[in-house]
Amino acid sequence: MAKLKNDTLIRALLRQPTPYTPVWLMRQAGRYLPEYNETRARAGSFLALCKNPDLATEVTLQPLARFALDAAIVFSDILTLPEAMGLGLGFTEGEGPRLDRPLREEREIRNLTAPDPDRHLRYVLDTIRQVRKALAGEVPLIGFAGSPFTLACYMVEGGATSDFRTVKTMLYGRPELLHRILDVNCSAVTAYLNAQIESGAQVVMVFDTWGGTLGPGEYREFSLAYMQRVVEGLKRVHHGERIPSILFTKGGGAWLESIAASGCDAVGLDWTVDPGAARCRIGERVALQGNLDPAVLLAGPQAIRSGVAAVLAGFGRGGGHVFNLGHGVSQFTPPENVALLVDTVHELSQRYH
Amino acid sequence: MAKLKNDTLIRALLRQPTPYTPVWLMRQAGRYLPEYNETRARAGSFLALCKNPDLATEVTLQPLARFALDAAIVFSDILTLPEAMGLGLGFTEGEGPRLDRPLREEREIRNLTAPDPDRHLRYVLDTIRQVRKALAGEVPLIGFAGSPFTLACYMVEGGATSDFRTVKTMLYGRPELLHRILDVNCSAVTAYLNAQIESGAQVVMVFDTWGGTLGPGEYREFSLAYMQRVVEGLKRVHHGERIPSILFTKGGGAWLESIAASGCDAVGLDWTVDPGAARCRIGERVALQGNLDPAVLLAGPQAIRSGVAAVLAGFGRGGGHVFNLGHGVSQFTPPENVALLVDTVHELSQRYH
Repeated sequence: MAKLKNDTLIRALLRQPTPYTPVWLMRQAGRYLPEYNETRARAGSFLALCKNPDLATEVTLQPLARFALDAAIVFSDILTLPEAMGLGLGFTEGEGPRLDRPLREEREIRNLTAPDPDRHLRYVLDTIRQVRKALAGEVPLIGFAGSPFTLACYMVEGGATSDFRTVKTMLYGRPELLHRILDVNCSAVTAYLNAQIESGAQVVMVFDTWGGTLGPGEYREFSLAYMQRVVEGLKRVHHGERIPSILFTKGGGAWLESIAASGCDAVGLDWTVDPGAARCRIGERVALQGNLDPAVLLAGPQAIRSGVAAVLAGFGRGGGHVFNLGHGVSQFTPPENVALLVDTVHELSQRYH
Repeated sequence: MAKLKNDTLIRALLRQPTPYTPVWLMRQAGRYLPEYNETRARAGSFLALCKNPDLATEVTLQPLARFALDAAIVFSDILTLPEAMGLGLGFTEGEGPRLDRPLREEREIRNLTAPDPDRHLRYVLDTIRQVRKALAGEVPLIGFAGSPFTLACYMVEGGATSDFRTVKTMLYGRPELLHRILDVNCSAVTAYLNAQIESGAQVVMVFDTWGGTLGPGEYREFSLAYMQRVVEGLKRVHHGERIPSILFTKGGGAWLESIAASGCDAVGLDWTVDPGAARCRIGERVALQGNLDPAVLLAGPQAIRSGVAAVLAGFGRGGGHVFNLGHGVSQFTPPENVALLVDTVHELSQRYH
């Protein structure tokens, strides 16, 4: 494997000095890019795109051809894991993902097993290998998975929901069943992320999209406890290189101290969190990633420059900050605004290093 | 007006001693009750139900006939105010509310004016008068409105949204236009709540459903500042009785101190907030209302009893607590679970008083 030319992301995640603040964006390869839509049309569907390593590699690299990003993130979806567990997966335009066989029967839950990534998720691992080769050490590659709880939400609900009533009815009424699902998910996520690391992922991130819909006690018991077990099971070093891990709970601003104490290297912040207050609360224990409101990218250049300046000022001096949005890039984002964002982060962040 | 027989809610909101913790539920009159669905069918539509004081009075009182609730809340909708501003309002089954003429043009925004509640929202005021009469002092009646920012979200987006991109594009790109809308909304909400008080509302509550989607600085500038102006403009005393006010920002757990400092009497908490921590943070400045996860009501009696016990223990001794859910009652709630909840709150809370 080629030696990393731009290791700013890795260094920032490990709280080592960097000349500027590295930046990448959640969902940086996506529908706001015309070339992505072209490749996706060629693939036939979102899922076909995920499953084709050549095309998935192509879209992973597209934002890097346009913008001076400090990392690539493998193009995939968190629901590839439930699909590999046999729950079936489809995407309907405008409605989001659907699992064809959601977990409702106790028998199905007892029979659930973690998939073998090398067999069932080989296409993701192949994509990672191809992307690493194509990157030739330019920037690091990030692998990812959904959190055990977030995956369980989809696995029980069967799709998007606004009230999480099926999974929460299980949580409050039959907690042992949900714990059984989470236990399997925990093993599955750990094995999947380790397989990604072995295939070439240089950073791993866990997306806990729905942990923030829980109460504090439920979050600790049903989401954080399992993410912590994932972190404990991750390979920390591969081929002599430290593999940093990032945990991100959307809506988890109240629990940053607990997330930071999980053993991860970095904590992602959504845009509702004040960066300076977050740094005060968790000190130097971990790096922080975030947290511009993605909607700022829909406004003009002035809003982007002042938004970037405010986020950088909020995180302040001392490093350990990876610039990102507080959530994924909106499909309605003009690509030139992303270029402006990335360049502005690089320009304005130097004074903080 | 009849003297109040059960003033537990008022006393708790003013942090005076009570023999037990009063309880009412957001959306306590609603689709989970078969008698509500029957009346709504008779009205023809949700909006027709809101606009018919006889039927709106009927559904306001329905939960009180079933459950030992400590308050009534007038049956209405926060979008009656934008409708009174001429934006048009319709409800589509399963899709939620739609405003036919959302605010997009600068000219429309400049021309926006606050409606006269006595002319344009008379049906709500008539409902309040009828409910007060029918209640005959049994329990207090709560009036309500949406927050200026939450109303602006609907007025600019035109309906439900997951990313708030239109209103946020305005917020970041043309903040002066959003401030103009918020300024009108602020006057409109203040006049509307004062008209409700003059018609008989004994408590008023402001629902800030979407303030929690903002960053900390944006929340202060675009939501809290205007709620504070509303609170400052409210009649605090009517016919010699103190009229307590409650502010509730869903997802606003990070900003409780600022909300509590707004001049309101009580702060609503959603279920993601730890009650004990909230009490520590804001001390005795205001009463607190909340905060059981509405999904607990979908599980069995054991979950309800332990959920109620945990919330009561979290708020602890010392009064100043109004039991409620952290959000509205789900339409899928079995009514007998609400009965159990209310009775359990009354039973278990006595030891805290």
